[in-house]
Amino acid sequence: MKVGIIGATGYGGLELIRLLHNHPEIENIDLFTSSDEGNNFSNKYTHLLNIHDEPLLKIEHAKLAHYDVIFTSTPSGISRELLPSLIGKGPKLIDLSGDFRLKDPAQYEHWYKKTPAPTQALEKSVYGLTEWNRKAIEHATIIANPGCYPTAVLLSLLPLIKENLIDATQLIIDAKSGISGAGNKPTQMTHFSETNENTAIYKLHQHQHIPEIEQAIETFTNQSTLITFTTHLVPMTRGILTTSYAHVNEGITEKHLTNALQDTYANQPFVRIIEQTDKFGTNQVYGSNFCDIHVKVDPRTNRATIVSVIDNLVKGAAGQAIQNMNVQCNLDQTTGLSLVPLFI
Amino acid sequence: MKVGIIGATGYGGLELIRLLHNHPEIENIDLFTSSDEGNNFSNKYTHLLNIHDEPLLKIEHAKLAHYDVIFTSTPSGISRELLPSLIGKGPKLIDLSGDFRLKDPAQYEHWYKKTPAPTQALEKSVYGLTEWNRKAIEHATIIANPGCYPTAVLLSLLPLIKENLIDATQLIIDAKSGISGAGNKPTQMTHFSETNENTAIYKLHQHQHIPEIEQAIETFTNQSTLITFTTHLVPMTRGILTTSYAHVNEGITEKHLTNALQDTYANQPFVRIIEQTDKFGTNQVYGSNFCDIHVKVDPRTNRATIVSVIDNLVKGAAGQAIQNMNVQCNLDQTTGLSLVPLFI
Amino acid sequence: MKVGIIGATGYGGLELIRLLHNHPEIENIDLFTSSDEGNNFSNKYTHLLNIHDEPLLKIEHAKLAHYDVIFTSTPSGISRELLPSLIGKGPKLIDLSGDFRLKDPAQYEHWYKKTPAPTQALEKSVYGLTEWNRKAIEHATIIANPGCYPTAVLLSLLPLIKENLIDATQLIIDAKSGISGAGNKPTQMTHFSETNENTAIYKLHQHQHIPEIEQAIETFTNQSTLITFTTHLVPMTRGILTTSYAHVNEGITEKHLTNALQDTYANQPFVRIIEQTDKFGTNQVYGSNFCDIHVKVDPRTNRATIVSVIDNLVKGAAGQAIQNMNVQCNLDQTTGLSLVPLFI
Amino acid sequence: MKVGIIGATGYGGLELIRLLHNHPEIENIDLFTSSDEGNNFSNKYTHLLNIHDEPLLKIEHAKLAHYDVIFTSTPSGISRELLPSLIGKGPKLIDLSGDFRLKDPAQYEHWYKKTPAPTQALEKSVYGLTEWNRKAIEHATIIANPGCYPTAVLLSLLPLIKENLIDATQLIIDAKSGISGAGNKPTQMTHFSETNENTAIYKLHQHQHIPEIEQAIETFTNQSTLITFTTHLVPMTRGILTTSYAHVNEGITEKHLTNALQDTYANQPFVRIIEQTDKFGTNQVYGSNFCDIHVKVDPRTNRATIVSVIDNLVKGAAGQAIQNMNVQCNLDQTTGLSLVPLFI
Repeated sequence: MKVGIIGATGYGGLELIRLLHNHPEIENIDLFTSSDEGNNFSNKYTHLLNIHDEPLLKIEHAKLAHYDVIFTSTPSGISRELLPSLIGKGPKLIDLSGDFRLKDPAQYEHWYKKTPAPTQALEKSVYGLTEWNRKAIEHATIIANPGCYPTAVLLSLLPLIKENLIDATQLIIDAKSGISGAGNKPTQMTHFSETNENTAIYKLHQHQHIPEIEQAIETFTNQSTLITFTTHLVPMTRGILTTSYAHVNEGITEKHLTNALQDTYANQPFVRIIEQTDKFGTNQVYGSNFCDIHVKVDPRTNRATIVSVIDNLVKGAAGQAIQNMNVQCNLDQTTGLSLVPLFI
Repeated sequence: MKVGIIGATGYGGLELIRLLHNHPEIENIDLFTSSDEGNNFSNKYTHLLNIHDEPLLKIEHAKLAHYDVIFTSTPSGISRELLPSLIGKGPKLIDLSGDFRLKDPAQYEHWYKKTPAPTQALEKSVYGLTEWNRKAIEHATIIANPGCYPTAVLLSLLPLIKENLIDATQLIIDAKSGISGAGNKPTQMTHFSETNENTAIYKLHQHQHIPEIEQAIETFTNQSTLITFTTHLVPMTRGILTTSYAHVNEGITEKHLTNALQDTYANQPFVRIIEQTDKFGTNQVYGSNFCDIHVKVDPRTNRATIVSVIDNLVKGAAGQAIQNMNVQCNLDQTTGLSLVPLFI
Repeated sequence: MKVGIIGATGYGGLELIRLLHNHPEIENIDLFTSSDEGNNFSNKYTHLLNIHDEPLLKIEHAKLAHYDVIFTSTPSGISRELLPSLIGKGPKLIDLSGDFRLKDPAQYEHWYKKTPAPTQALEKSVYGLTEWNRKAIEHATIIANPGCYPTAVLLSLLPLIKENLIDATQLIIDAKSGISGAGNKPTQMTHFSETNENTAIYKLHQHQHIPEIEQAIETFTNQSTLITFTTHLVPMTRGILTTSYAHVNEGITEKHLTNALQDTYANQPFVRIIEQTDKFGTNQVYGSNFCDIHVKVDPRTNRATIVSVIDNLVKGAAGQAIQNMNVQCNLDQTTGLSLVPLFI
Repeated sequence: MKVGIIGATGYGGLELIRLLHNHPEIENIDLFTSSDEGNNFSNKYTHLLNIHDEPLLKIEHAKLAHYDVIFTSTPSGISRELLPSLIGKGPKLIDLSGDFRLKDPAQYEHWYKKTPAPTQALEKSVYGLTEWNRKAIEHATIIANPGCYPTAVLLSLLPLIKENLIDATQLIIDAKSGISGAGNKPTQMTHFSETNENTAIYKLHQHQHIPEIEQAIETFTNQSTLITFTTHLVPMTRGILTTSYAHVNEGITEKHLTNALQDTYANQPFVRIIEQTDKFGTNQVYGSNFCDIHVKVDPRTNRATIVSVIDNLVKGAAGQAIQNMNVQCNLDQTTGLSLVPLFI
């Protein structure tokens, strides 16, 4: 298979390169750029010397149609212009930006403050939460790969909401992320000296992943809800931990919650339920495509705390994108993704 | 004034030394130990060379009575044996461990899994949340200095609960702490390679600061509540950020909340209300005695998010202890504590 | 192939597990322990759930003989007792501790302050610096896998010394390491709060890797030298950067040095020479088996600065051990090791 | 005393504000800017709320002349235009940029790639290495405050060179710095995700502090030398550790070196000689104005390793600037600078 990556210098793009170079079905990876064309990629990113020394290619529509798969790992607002005309032209399209996630253009406009993708393209796009949308993904030509936060949140909450074990109308979700989620562009917010030794809340009540989570809850459980969702930056590079709080419905115990999670993911290789643990953190899954989930009910309050960890660049971006490609291309979904977490 | 510190090698003790050495009213600081007696303290902690070169002293009851102030910064279970017999013998007593915080011995036993302090001593102890208990502190001989998490939580929530602006029966509090809160004893949980690049939840629903927060809410607002409170470790040394979630009562707006905070702390030098901010984090207060608070109401859900940051070793431990000493000793409460945050 | 790992809970052991689980020729990995026998490994290390759930096995001599390869990743002083009687009994033996590296027992005793391995076993052991000792490794039954620091130092200096391009009698080597090199045992030296935001020098002039480097220089270049070698801990988990300083011999230019490195490693997949770079660091090789080298001659002083980076747990330990196993077992040396660096 | 700070938003400027706000002789601090004039400083830097709420002032020559002291903490190339016309007009001038350090304009041009300051101004400037140039500083109107690296290097090496204990012609100096030394401007080099978990060498053989160190060695010891000096970035915010290597002259022992350091700094409150230590690092001096020095001779090679640590923003910038101000203004040099290191 031949794949093209648009936006290779972003962190999603670099992670796609890392993973695809060990994917046994990929014979060719080409990188496309709007600026640095002709330059050898390993001149800029010397860690790829001897791995990816080919020059960056200019983005040309005609050329793109000849790939088996095109990944777009670009800032929002770009793939909505590039991809619509490629739909149905041959390549599977997998978009890691947010452009094709929100079905309602008005929502996109409201939360992203940008012009939405054409409605026709939005209608054809399939939300790529692999464990929950596999059938649709198999037949999709354009995949809206989920955001990093929504992946961690949805995988841990959907089974509990779907089976009416928790009260979905009062969800509080507190998310913590490493800094790589903010991308490769240097800003004051990602400047080492102001980020190190600092835990901070940002975009309070305004994160564009809020409508994405609400839409997916509605899609997969038929429950409409408004969530409270906050995002924090912690001084590490990779990893997301989400702590979600919910009232447990009457008669429901911790065991019901754990069972629902275990049953839902019994045959899912990338979701693991961790039952006993003193300390549960993001290093559980570092560098891997796992989403690990831990749940506990506080008998004092009858509220559940549901904790979920992913590597934001793998299961939260490039890994899930490749998992979707595997599904679309009829490969085992773990192909190229059997990575063991680094832990240390 | 002459002060004695018991437990000087712990991080609370080291921070007391750092701050008291620049306190203009302190002429003498003696350090007491149960193990290293006779050793020069700056042999062990070379950063104190030329600052505190005196030998560690043996803990002897008779000697302790001659100090103006005794600080105990020990693991829980020690000061409850040391301090009761010193009550009323002369020195002001300020305990940084949890031994004198919970008025109900059964609660202490339940949450700390240890024998509680004698009831008589518990009855005399005064909870040292300076901004909320000043009058009692002025006349106290034994102060139970608040825990780090409760300090951040209570300062940000008490004004809102007291004035009935938020629903105190449904509080969700998500706390994030730097690793120094775990003390100076090496454990797997504080081992660099398993702590760095890792955000983790620990002691889920079982942290001993839960009853302390609930007791203080009841004491200062007359409202009884069971909270959901979780604690996370983030890879930094100092700092606590707490994110609290509450329903806003009918007719109440963000402005009411902000005003209540500003009015409560109008004359309090160490509590600052931050109104506008894109990113609000622990480096705001690094190394200083400030508690900074930011509040926002989400109009979609009518829930408030209340964020609070402190330096866990200063306002969360040694700084507040000295603030209490200042109040007890009739000094301006800022004496020796006018530290500007490091920020970077 | 069936492999056994003794010392699986150490960081070298965990990294062997990470890499061997994706090695296509390994069908079985068994873990041996002296303490936790019978426990499921993934109970202790939950990041290995569904990957390595088998119980830890008791170390029994008879059983060990049935493996194709035995790795010992133990503190020094243990494998010297375990391995000698297994030599020639079947399994290839690869020791990641320092017990079989120093040929002179007196040197071991002096630097390790422990009893050396039996002389006969020492004589049979082969130093596993793969790129420099391949022929001997192919026929070895016991491999002394190199130390992390020596790997980075030797790969960068040996070509220059061997071809007489630099003055080997005046070598100054300044090494910086992440904390994982200190292993998994919690100590004050690896306690997060005293390690974070701290760069420190340790074991000044006394590191046991000094005689290992000197011995290898003599072995591979026939030059006897006493080096100055210092080691520093920097607040990160993985990575070693060594900065070496040497006088350039008369008539020798930077180009000669670069050429010598490039020629030596022209056919070596894991050693890369980086020619142009503004900033050259350990993230170049994070999580991979690469050793990257950069050299520059200062025309003002005619001294060369030679910089080398590795991941201490991969090329500096488990990765090189597997590379040696591949060579011993007649596999392509990159089998299971084609890892792309994480970079971010 | 009234002081003005030009370049307040840089990290040198922020640190001046932190320290001067607790300086007992300063009654007024004004901040000057070329861009944000009129804005309240604590709007931008909320950690200064209630501490420094005054608006930023426009840089006007006439106004500047009325201050007792002007600090310039600007990028290189700015103070050389601002300060010359203020010389002799009233205020003491203390420049934290490199513009007035190199006496030879050609050297400045070569290393800084910029137009040098006017020769007359250069001639009047006094190098502000307080412990070595006190007499000149007392009478100076313009101080060239030393660079961060030179401060750590010179304080540790000058006594040994001056007394001919080490061979100054073969100095190798390996320096490691936290990221705050790179200033507050976001760049790829200071971007968290590429800086965290990374130790890197940069500006190899080209750092502008090289000629500054060489010039100071010549000034204070009359020895002319060309040094090898390299700089590394380590993933922490504050702190510099320099490891210097030198041959010990004949007949000289470790004791001679230690004595020379102790004698030189016997009456210097900010330089401490640490004799015994297992691990010697930058947290020794965090947040304080100390420079701590440790020296050891390796009997195998007769080479000395000289290690020096400072907080780059304090003794390496703002702290030393205030120390110089104290000397110029006839105050005790420790006024406002008796900070105890944070250590944790």
